[in-house]
Amino acid sequence: MESPLTPLEFVRRARRLYPDREAVVDGELRLTYRQFLDRCDRWSSALQRLGVCQGDRVACIAPNTHAHLEAFYAVPQIGAVVVPINYRLSADDFAYIINHSGARVVCVDPAYLDTVDRIRDQLPKVEHFVALKGSRAGWLDYEAELAESTTTVERSLIRESDLLSINYTSGTTARPKGVMITHRNAALNILGTLAHLHMTPGERYLWTLPMFHCNGWTFVWIVTAVGGTHVCLPKVDPASVFDLAVREKITLLCAAPTILISIANAPETLRQSAPRGVRVLTAGAPPAAATIERVEGELGWNITQVYGLTETSPFMTICEPRPEHTRLTARAGAEIKARQGVEFLTAGESRVVDAEGNEVQHDGATVGEIVVRGNCVMAGYYNDPEGTAEAMRGGWFHSGDAAVVHPDGYIEIRDRIKDVIISGGENISSIEVEGALVRHPAVQEVAVVGLPHEKWGEAPHAFVVLRQGASATETELRQFARDNLAHFKVPQGFTFLTELPKTATGKLQKYVLRGGRANMAKQ
Amino acid sequence: MESPLTPLEFVRRARRLYPDREAVVDGELRLTYRQFLDRCDRWSSALQRLGVCQGDRVACIAPNTHAHLEAFYAVPQIGAVVVPINYRLSADDFAYIINHSGARVVCVDPAYLDTVDRIRDQLPKVEHFVALKGSRAGWLDYEAELAESTTTVERSLIRESDLLSINYTSGTTARPKGVMITHRNAALNILGTLAHLHMTPGERYLWTLPMFHCNGWTFVWIVTAVGGTHVCLPKVDPASVFDLAVREKITLLCAAPTILISIANAPETLRQSAPRGVRVLTAGAPPAAATIERVEGELGWNITQVYGLTETSPFMTICEPRPEHTRLTARAGAEIKARQGVEFLTAGESRVVDAEGNEVQHDGATVGEIVVRGNCVMAGYYNDPEGTAEAMRGGWFHSGDAAVVHPDGYIEIRDRIKDVIISGGENISSIEVEGALVRHPAVQEVAVVGLPHEKWGEAPHAFVVLRQGASATETELRQFARDNLAHFKVPQGFTFLTELPKTATGKLQKYVLRGGRANMAKQ
Repeated sequence: MESPLTPLEFVRRARRLYPDREAVVDGELRLTYRQFLDRCDRWSSALQRLGVCQGDRVACIAPNTHAHLEAFYAVPQIGAVVVPINYRLSADDFAYIINHSGARVVCVDPAYLDTVDRIRDQLPKVEHFVALKGSRAGWLDYEAELAESTTTVERSLIRESDLLSINYTSGTTARPKGVMITHRNAALNILGTLAHLHMTPGERYLWTLPMFHCNGWTFVWIVTAVGGTHVCLPKVDPASVFDLAVREKITLLCAAPTILISIANAPETLRQSAPRGVRVLTAGAPPAAATIERVEGELGWNITQVYGLTETSPFMTICEPRPEHTRLTARAGAEIKARQGVEFLTAGESRVVDAEGNEVQHDGATVGEIVVRGNCVMAGYYNDPEGTAEAMRGGWFHSGDAAVVHPDGYIEIRDRIKDVIISGGENISSIEVEGALVRHPAVQEVAVVGLPHEKWGEAPHAFVVLRQGASATETELRQFARDNLAHFKVPQGFTFLTELPKTATGKLQKYVLRGGRANMAKQ
Repeated sequence: MESPLTPLEFVRRARRLYPDREAVVDGELRLTYRQFLDRCDRWSSALQRLGVCQGDRVACIAPNTHAHLEAFYAVPQIGAVVVPINYRLSADDFAYIINHSGARVVCVDPAYLDTVDRIRDQLPKVEHFVALKGSRAGWLDYEAELAESTTTVERSLIRESDLLSINYTSGTTARPKGVMITHRNAALNILGTLAHLHMTPGERYLWTLPMFHCNGWTFVWIVTAVGGTHVCLPKVDPASVFDLAVREKITLLCAAPTILISIANAPETLRQSAPRGVRVLTAGAPPAAATIERVEGELGWNITQVYGLTETSPFMTICEPRPEHTRLTARAGAEIKARQGVEFLTAGESRVVDAEGNEVQHDGATVGEIVVRGNCVMAGYYNDPEGTAEAMRGGWFHSGDAAVVHPDGYIEIRDRIKDVIISGGENISSIEVEGALVRHPAVQEVAVVGLPHEKWGEAPHAFVVLRQGASATETELRQFARDNLAHFKVPQGFTFLTELPKTATGKLQKYVLRGGRANMAKQ
């Protein structure tokens, strides 16, 4: 007998097994699973009353709130498709994504109502605008809609190949692309995560990772699948993270490296309050080993790195702990943990290949592109057959990430393919240079890009953010780089900044730095 | 992108990730994953040379040896179907199953060659007889076949709905039925098990459970999926279990309650040698809370109960540990652990229903039948559409197990439907009576069945096996039962035996006891 693989099956089970367990904490609000799923059902029946049918798209612009979480249940269970939008994007991007996805309903957090009101006349296909909190002219009131609805929902018959969500990529350079994630994609990412990362009904999960980012790496459903508790955190700052970690007895959180860095660099008094033993899943960009070493050593937290992209549901590889790793020093252990690791159990086959598609040597040195095929790969880009075909050429999804494979089979990203610096005929990994510089005690963050150079064609240039209260000169940093890197990898120039340009998901926007430097050079 | 859900995908991944880890220990033989999977490939190409094609059946009659384990890889990866036969069955049953499955090849352990030779003329469809160890006239020599073959295999394109195995039920009363397990069935049981029971590459698994029993509850592939080590154990006795547990640093094993009982009752000197912290998965029959309490208390092992049937791939429910259980006394904790628990993550929906198909009250008292629908349910009985339709009536698979549901949602089996004793209009659970009697210090094992009674129509009768060196009279046991049970549940008669009749998988054959008692009464 076959029944569809879908996150909704785990929700059905949670409703049955965990009705009285705490499902959601959001500020003062606390909901049991019965209360939370009843609210989701009311929102489903309200959406049906508003005319939303199977296959229709419902967009959300919201931080990590209970209302946003509810959309990941209410929308799919009536067969509709959830479109979670990065709230840090511009109004112009909002309009593009809403129109491109063809959303009939747009649900918006109070913080973004003004922005959406300004682009309303550019959104001819949207039939209903829903304010997720409070009432406002021209907007449906979410809580009022729930109050008017019953928990009786006509649940759709779902096929596992049906669309569950369209997640728009952050689009560092081009227009966002709509990644089509199926019920099966997400269900298998959930099962794989649970197999790798054992979780129990006692789990208390802190929402540091944005829910919009590939459905919170599917944790919007994973936590529910085990009967754990979602602790919402609308705005991530170290003080809130440490405060909630203590008060809500947090056991697990997900964070991009940039969040880890801000946690590692929080004031001493805050860090001292941190509970020990919190598990952290990190992804979204390769973390520096030094960051891992600090968070593990100073906070006593336990970091596991996973790697993936929105297009891969998202997990492609995991830095799987092995028995032999436990015998390593803290530093050597952190070096391993900074690798992206090995094939995720449910993802499919991943390889690092050269330009001809041949697998590179597992020598820790030969750079190739990470490609993958299997159940983690999206159904395609929405309404973009050419973009899909380009990404899927040869039957493999091309990640755009440049990596080496170590003799133990662990993949390590060296760069985005387009960020590899070619200097005097030598390939330089900007990530390797960054990893060396960030070990300098004054350096909080650093980004290295290739800039035009008369003699070498291109040469590395470092953009540095210093730690609060610390200082370092260009000369000092250049000497530090010389002591720790091959000569040709040492940055030719250093620029000090107060922060680095990043996407909402913590990815460095190196193209901004290249452009910015060019502008600076012109001045 | 979709690729088929199959255990073979986890094998492909293990070959890539764990080539140098220890895969198999069998006596003096030790194989890495590279060596082990190379042997499987050689056997695959040998089978292809022998003419085995996609969809063909290959039967095995063997205890827990590396050669038996190899069949679970070599046969499916060429698209053929593995038919593991219970080696404790009669020659007549062997012939029935081999013929019914239409096996073209039969692989046999040396211990069963004579038996198969005796029925050879009843097996007209078998083209090749393979001796799994040593050479013998009329038999292909397994190792010689491997030596003549290469590791080049034409792997079949598998669909996840394709048959992976046909597992014949132990058939306590009727002819064995061939349960059709698909690649998807098994893959999801594997993923669910890994989600519930976190396992790592450091896992060392002891093969106490027969591999033929529903593919060793899919552990033939689960252990490989995590890069753990299979430690084979052809014959289970407490001395071997404790010896291997120490020498091979065992971390995990599966065992029917009857094996747990023999472990719990092993001589003191053996039990003292046992390593602590071994995890035990138990299923196959409801264990008594007293057995769980003893194994956990005296050995420091940690027992998790799962429940299922061959027809459900096999896991249907798991006695999931909850945070609140940790606050219970050892005895109260064991009472919980003796329950069959809640829906297994990947199994589908299970319910306890009355004769009309309505769910019973969750009151811990109302008895109904356990039914299930979802991905755990078999594709059907092989060549038996009527048997399939009967088992699947109303779209639910009917387990034949009578159970109650406690207010916390945990299912607890009270009996096989056909073993419920109806005495003076009252339903008596034979398992409840057994659970009370087994707490008497002299009692090792007990089985209670209903026998005809002039006044009550039917009345409970206890068959008792005493612990070695212990003694108890019928009067003592009756008084003990009166002190611990409602009066009408106290057995009307007691019979002392040296062992209970069981199937190869540890299930009590109560029909034998009913018949036996009848014969005794006649004397």
